[in-house]
Order: sequence, then C-alpha cells, then structure tokens
Amino acid sequence: MAKYLTNRDENYAQWYNDLVIKADLAEHSAVRGCMVIKPYGYAIWEKIQAQLDKMFKATGHVNAYFPLFIPKSFFSREAEHVEGFAKECAIVTHYRLKNDESGKGVVIDPAAKLEEELIIRPTSETIIWNSYRNWIRSYRDLPLLINQWANVVRWEMRTRLFLRTAEFLWQEGHTAHATREEAVEETEKMINVYADFVENFMALPVVKGYKTESERFAGAVDTLAIEALMQDGKGLQVGTSHFLGQNFARAFDVQFTDRNGKLEYVWATSWGLSTRTIGALIMAHSDNHGLVLPPLLAPVQVVIIPIYKNREQLQHISTAALKIKSALEENGISVKYDDRDTNKPGWKFADYELKGVPVRIAIGPRDIENNSLEIFRRDTLAKETISASGATDHIKKLLGDIQENIFRKAGEFKNDNTYYLDKWEDFVDITENKGGFIMAHWDGSPATEEKIKEETKATIRCIPFDSPEEEGKCIYSGKPSVKRVLFSRAY
Amino acid sequence: MAKYLTNRDENYAQWYNDLVIKADLAEHSAVRGCMVIKPYGYAIWEKIQAQLDKMFKATGHVNAYFPLFIPKSFFSREAEHVEGFAKECAIVTHYRLKNDESGKGVVIDPAAKLEEELIIRPTSETIIWNSYRNWIRSYRDLPLLINQWANVVRWEMRTRLFLRTAEFLWQEGHTAHATREEAVEETEKMINVYADFVENFMALPVVKGYKTESERFAGAVDTLAIEALMQDGKGLQVGTSHFLGQNFARAFDVQFTDRNGKLEYVWATSWGLSTRTIGALIMAHSDNHGLVLPPLLAPVQVVIIPIYKNREQLQHISTAALKIKSALEENGISVKYDDRDTNKPGWKFADYELKGVPVRIAIGPRDIENNSLEIFRRDTLAKETISASGATDHIKKLLGDIQENIFRKAGEFKNDNTYYLDKWEDFVDITENKGGFIMAHWDGSPATEEKIKEETKATIRCIPFDSPEEEGKCIYSGKPSVKRVLFSRAY
Repeated sequence: MAKYLTNRDENYAQWYNDLVIKADLAEHSAVRGCMVIKPYGYAIWEKIQAQLDKMFKATGHVNAYFPLFIPKSFFSREAEHVEGFAKECAIVTHYRLKNDESGKGVVIDPAAKLEEELIIRPTSETIIWNSYRNWIRSYRDLPLLINQWANVVRWEMRTRLFLRTAEFLWQEGHTAHATREEAVEETEKMINVYADFVENFMALPVVKGYKTESERFAGAVDTLAIEALMQDGKGLQVGTSHFLGQNFARAFDVQFTDRNGKLEYVWATSWGLSTRTIGALIMAHSDNHGLVLPPLLAPVQVVIIPIYKNREQLQHISTAALKIKSALEENGISVKYDDRDTNKPGWKFADYELKGVPVRIAIGPRDIENNSLEIFRRDTLAKETISASGATDHIKKLLGDIQENIFRKAGEFKNDNTYYLDKWEDFVDITENKGGFIMAHWDGSPATEEKIKEETKATIRCIPFDSPEEEGKCIYSGKPSVKRVLFSRAY
Repeated sequence: MAKYLTNRDENYAQWYNDLVIKADLAEHSAVRGCMVIKPYGYAIWEKIQAQLDKMFKATGHVNAYFPLFIPKSFFSREAEHVEGFAKECAIVTHYRLKNDESGKGVVIDPAAKLEEELIIRPTSETIIWNSYRNWIRSYRDLPLLINQWANVVRWEMRTRLFLRTAEFLWQEGHTAHATREEAVEETEKMINVYADFVENFMALPVVKGYKTESERFAGAVDTLAIEALMQDGKGLQVGTSHFLGQNFARAFDVQFTDRNGKLEYVWATSWGLSTRTIGALIMAHSDNHGLVLPPLLAPVQVVIIPIYKNREQLQHISTAALKIKSALEENGISVKYDDRDTNKPGWKFADYELKGVPVRIAIGPRDIENNSLEIFRRDTLAKETISASGATDHIKKLLGDIQENIFRKAGEFKNDNTYYLDKWEDFVDITENKGGFIMAHWDGSPATEEKIKEETKATIRCIPFDSPEEEGKCIYSGKPSVKRVLFSRAY
C-alpha cells in the first residue's frame, strides 16, 4: 500500500492528498468543495469530539443547537461580520421543486420563492445572539456558557480535504457575560483548553498568541489563536477564541440589568475548532509509510495479526490472541484482531502502517511455543519480541511512550525550525527556501504586515503571549518595535 | 411554575407547547419552522444519541459524514424518491452576497448563480449511494454498515416543536448488502434495536409492524416502523427501518461482483430516528406538574435541595449533601446540588418537578439531627423519609423502580386504550370521542385506507408483526381480510 504514496519530501501536497485518500480518511464528493468523511476519518473526529466535549463540560459549558439557516438581514447588523462572510456563503432562495413540464426531472417552483433569503450558517454569532436577547434579562441569567456541535458552510474557491472545504464540521462556543473582565477571562480560558487538547491529545506543540487586526475574526475585538508548525514548514491555525466585546450585543440589542439596576450591553466570546484539525494531525506526524496517530486519538490502538500456515495453527494463535485482546480491552485499550484470510500478513502490516495504528502485535507458531509476541511500534518502526505474560503492562506503557515520543519529536521539529531573525534577507531566504516559524520584530502597522505578505506570502500567525518585551527594529521597515511576532507561510 | 401550565386534560396541544417552553427544552427561532434546542432539551438528545450510538456500534455499524448538499439531478434518479421529497426542500441557488448599491445591507450577487441548484438533504440516500458506487466492487466490500448523525431539512408548512420542524436532527443508517436476505435481516434487526431502545430507555411500549404502501418511505420496497400511543390517544411513529431493495443501487448504478463472478446490483436498507423522539418522550409520560423523564434518559437523575434558615445550618447541610452527592456519583448517578440562594425551596421543588428530575432529596436541619433524608419521586409524586446511611442503595433501587413504573404505566395506558373493533360505528365513535389504538380488519386496498382516512382522519399506523392470521371482514368495506391492522389518528 504505502509504496503508492507520493514521497513526502518530494511533493508534500501530493503526499498529503494521497495519504488522506489511501488511508481511507476522506474523499471528494459529487458536490464541489464538499468532502465525504469516511468511517476511519470520522472515527478520529469522534475521538476529538469526545475529549473536547469532556473538557468543555468540565469548564462549565453545556451544549445546545441553533438553526442551520440565518435570515439574510441578520448579517447586515454587524458591519465587519457581513464584510467577512458575505462573499463566501450558500444562499437558500426557494423551498420547493416541481416536475419539469418537458418531463425531464425537476425544476425550481418559482411560486416557492422565500420572502427573505436564508444563509447557511458560516458561523452562528448572529442567530445565537438573536436568541440570547430573549434569554438574558438580568445579571442572574449570566453567564451563558453554551457550545454547539454543527456543520457550517463557507464557499471556498480552492478546497483541500479537511484543510479547507465548503462544508465542515466544528464546535462553536458562544458565551455571554456580565463584565468585560469575565469575557476576557473566558476567551483566555478556552484558548488554553484548546492548547491543552492539541498538545496533550494531538501531541502537537503550539504557539499561543493574539491575532493582528487583519487576521482577526470578523466582528471580534480580539482573536486569540493557537498555531502549529507542519512538516513542510508552513503554519496552521488549529483553534481560535474570540473576545467579541459588546459588538454582537449591540447589533442584536442584548441588554441586562446589572447588580446596581443599571441597563448594560452583554459581553461576548466565541471559540471554535473544526475538522481542519484532522488535517493538522495528519500533516504534523505522518511519514512515507503513512499516518502516525497519537495513541490517545487513534480509533484502533493495537492491532493483532496472526501468522499461520494452516487452520490448526490459526486456532492456537486465535486462542492466544483473543486472550491478549480482552486483557488489553479490560485496560481501556482499543484492539482489533485481524484474522481475515483474504489478505496476507505482509499486506496487513503495510495497511496498518498506512493507517497509523500505534502498536502492532504479530503472533506466529513459534511465538506460541515460546510464549512470546512480536511488537511493532508505528512511530519509530521498531520491532521487539516480548514475553506474552507481561504483555498488557508492557503495551500500556508503550502506548504512553509513543504518545510522548510523538509530542517530543514534533516539539524538536518546531524548535529546530523556529528562527529568530533580524535581517530582511534572512527572512526572505528562510521563507522561500526552508520554511518554518520566524520570530521577528514588526513595527505594528497593517501596511508593513501587508507588504511582507505581498513579498513573501508569509503572514503574522500571532503575537505570542510569551514573546518578551525587548527593544528592536522592524525586520521590514526598520522602525522601532517592542517585541517579536511569529511569521510563517500558512495553510 | 407548574401552575402556569395549561391543564393537560383540557387542552393537550397547548399543554404540550407550554411544557416544552417552560421546561426550557426548546423554542421557536427567528427562522420559520426552525427551533432552537435549548441546553436542557439538548441534554436529553445527548443521552439518546449516546445510547443509540452504543447500540449501533454493538451491532457492527460505524459512523461517517456525507455532504449537506445534494445536486438537484440526483433527486430525479429514483422516481418515487423525488415525488416524496421535492415538494418540501430548501434549495441553494447562489453562493455569494454583495453590498446593495443603495447602501442598505446585502443582496444576492447575480453573478454567483450555481450551474446546478443544490438541495439541502431531506434524507441522504442519493448522495450516499452516489458515493457507494466507488466503494463497492466485489462481495468482499460488503456489507457496508454505516450510520450518520446529521441535520436534515424538510420544508414543513405546519410545524410544532420537536414533532415537526423544518430542520431537525437525526441519525440515518445506510447499509449495503450482497443479498436480499441479508438486507431484509438488517432492516428487521434495526427496527428491533429501535424497539429495544424505545421500550427500555424511553420507557415507552411500541407496536412493531409493516407500513402500508401509502405510508411507505419514498423509494422503499418495505418500511418497518415502531408506533407508540400518546396520552391524548394519538399515535406517533418513533422510528422507521426501510428495505430499499435494489432501487437506489439501480438509480446510482452500484453493482458488485458476487462469489460466482457475476455482476449484481447491491441491496440496501436505511433507518432513522430523530429529535421527534423527544416529543414522544414528553407526550407519553408527562403530567400537569410538568415533565416525567425516565431515569435512564434524564440529564439530572437526582437533585438535592437544602432547606435552611441561616448560614450555619446551610453549612451543616452542605457537608451532608455533598457526601451523598459524591456517593451517588461514584455509582454512576448524575446529581445536582442546588444551593442557590436566589430562590426558595418551594420554587425549586416546583421547578424540578416541571423539569422532570426523577428523584428529589430535601435536607433540613431536622434531617441532620436525625440522620435522615426526605425523598420525593417524580413519577408518583410520593414522599418518604429514609435513613441517610443506606441512601445510595435506596436511591439506586428507586431509580430502577421509577424506570420500571413509568414503562408499566405507559403499557397499561396502551392496553387500556387499544380496542379490537368489528363495527364501523364503533370505529368512528372511538376515533372521534376517545382516541386510542384500534385493531381492525382491513381489506388490503389503498382505496379503502384512503376512504377511512377521509372520513375519520385515522390512518393505518402499521400491520403489526404479531397480528395473528384470522378470518375477518374489513371494518369499512366488509370485504374479506386475513388479519387486523393498527389504526389511529397520528402525529
């Protein structure tokens, strides 16, 4: 299988596309820009959902569901919001088809034209704040800490599986608060929840920081983001958390009576993470053999493959394999025993490497004799033979080691490919020829940011929280700067 | 709170609507026919999802995700399917807005007209079978056992919260099989899974049976359904499972090579259950005090309310309450301790009755002295005082009893309101004046079925699997019949 993958170092984009298709994660659909998320890809999304949902609930959030449709007029209420989303939205204009008079299929029934067009949600601030107006009267009704798991549509012209699709799945949190401070705190709390999830479950180190004005969410006062580095040296924004100020409360007239009886506009945040994350997961860790999945998000953590010449051998092996399987499952480890006789072991080995199953166990007749197992770990491609007796503990520990090792490796890659630069020619050289994260001084002006983008395609990924105050000169304009910001080309 | 509910026995429809709103389950949105599912209502849906998803996986199914949009031409391929859904679908015609030249908001950009209109999925057979065409080559690729959790849109003209909304949430299973027998078996298996879920988790007895031709899913060879009786004597279809024959395989040209090397069309099933189920749950069990939720689907199973006059009392009570809470939680029971000082105990009692929390514990100063608790069960409204020492076991058992009692009660109601009738005037009388399930003979003709519907608004809910063969005469036409079928007015 893996031999059909394009070489990662020769053509990264094609390697990525091959991998998504061949590992059975997703495919293009008959609808332009929309993907089908296949069962194996969706199983990863289910793992992501389950973990994030748990973290949201642990921080006091509840789920709800708001309509797919947004009346067109809602968009015009928040000026920046409509600017940001109007150019890429799917619009419903009619609600009925009828038989074509020529007898060839169906056509729109012109009599069924909507009075007001409906937009398929590209994000739900407007419809949600329109509901919140009726839910919030007093400070006692606050905070509202609500999340929604949903599909959204943004009519992208150039699409790529997982990374950029017209329809995608995500969660969007929308919270309402009595004070500015509380909303800012929530914005920060949620970017930290995302960072925690991405680092500890996706095994992917991130840089946390503020977006510049030009990269901010349409309608936000401040956008916080986590940025990760892919193996081709490009950045990818994994999640964002927005402090919306009182913008949507003003647009939808959501006021409350505070503790002193005064009428005030409500403070808002929103935050989202999407199926794009699966693209990041694939691109950050995988290799020329296929996917490398961190055990905590792998749909199958351990696969057991029997190696046999006849039915009798298979029977002995199966007995041993099923015993190991249930012992592992009792420890919360997900295991697949693949005893299909339609494919040879070698084919299966390659297939599970392609699919990124963290641990493979092979059991042959000699293993039965010796009470041993052959263990293969996907991250390092290393094999070892262990005693079957201590297998459960060994594998439990191994899965932990693999999770750690993948994170460590990604961290080393990020460190090795983060450059602190002070000269424009170095900036251009690194951006053009190597890729990676560049920490450089910037004069803070949108004009300079735009110029740098025009000349190098590199953008400011974020102003990192932990970038220390230091005197410096903007790498492009030479004007004074007080801290370095993070640049890279990005997905 | 509850006193503001319309009396169930005076105006059932208004009672239902009041209850949905006042128990904070859902509300109408700004978009015609679309509801907002509020956190408490959505928490019930999450419970339903979690349990069903477990049951689907235990029967070998996996989840995937297919596009929201369906190209219009796909609809014309299966003749009955388009007949069934064309008249109630939302149609996307454009993909961009632009600023209105008058400066007032945004308008459709006529330059961004789609070449082919896209339909928002009312159900996904067409887009899924178009994908399956590329997934299935040989009998080795079968069966495909795939489920999708998704939103769908059917442009209903008369809508009611949960029961009938333009957009609703559901799951839709779509399976592909090598033989007719296997597909029929799957269709039956899934109606049994639904029945198991509805009876054992929703505590709602159902009648399983076949739909008549006129009530069949558009494109199905056979539709199996589970039907439940609501407290106003109307029936409600809770779930359906369709045997689709080779209809969609033919429409989308999905063929496979069988074991003998012969090219054959694939056999299909689909099955779905939606947020409508929440409507059934509410209508079947609730009373004039509010919701009655079966413990297995209640978001909060036990609420603890402190009764105190001063801070010191509250402190003692809280210590005891939190001890009970964690003991219950260790036993997998979800507990809320409501020590808010913004509302009086009486108000809280009424509110949790309205919300259908199965068990309420009240703890006052005297309970602390006596090491006792006051326990209230929502289903019977009965109170008792128990010793705090054995509380966990007592409440665990009580939750089981409540689950059973609600099911038993609903079963008695169904039995008491199921009539075996042989005279048309009785049929009319029961239908008009009492409501309920009627088991009566039918001559098997769609014309008779239609006449009965015209005259009484009663429809054939299903031909029950367990309706015994017996000679009889059609209750309407007097023509011969071999078994009774189930009639009622229905939602």
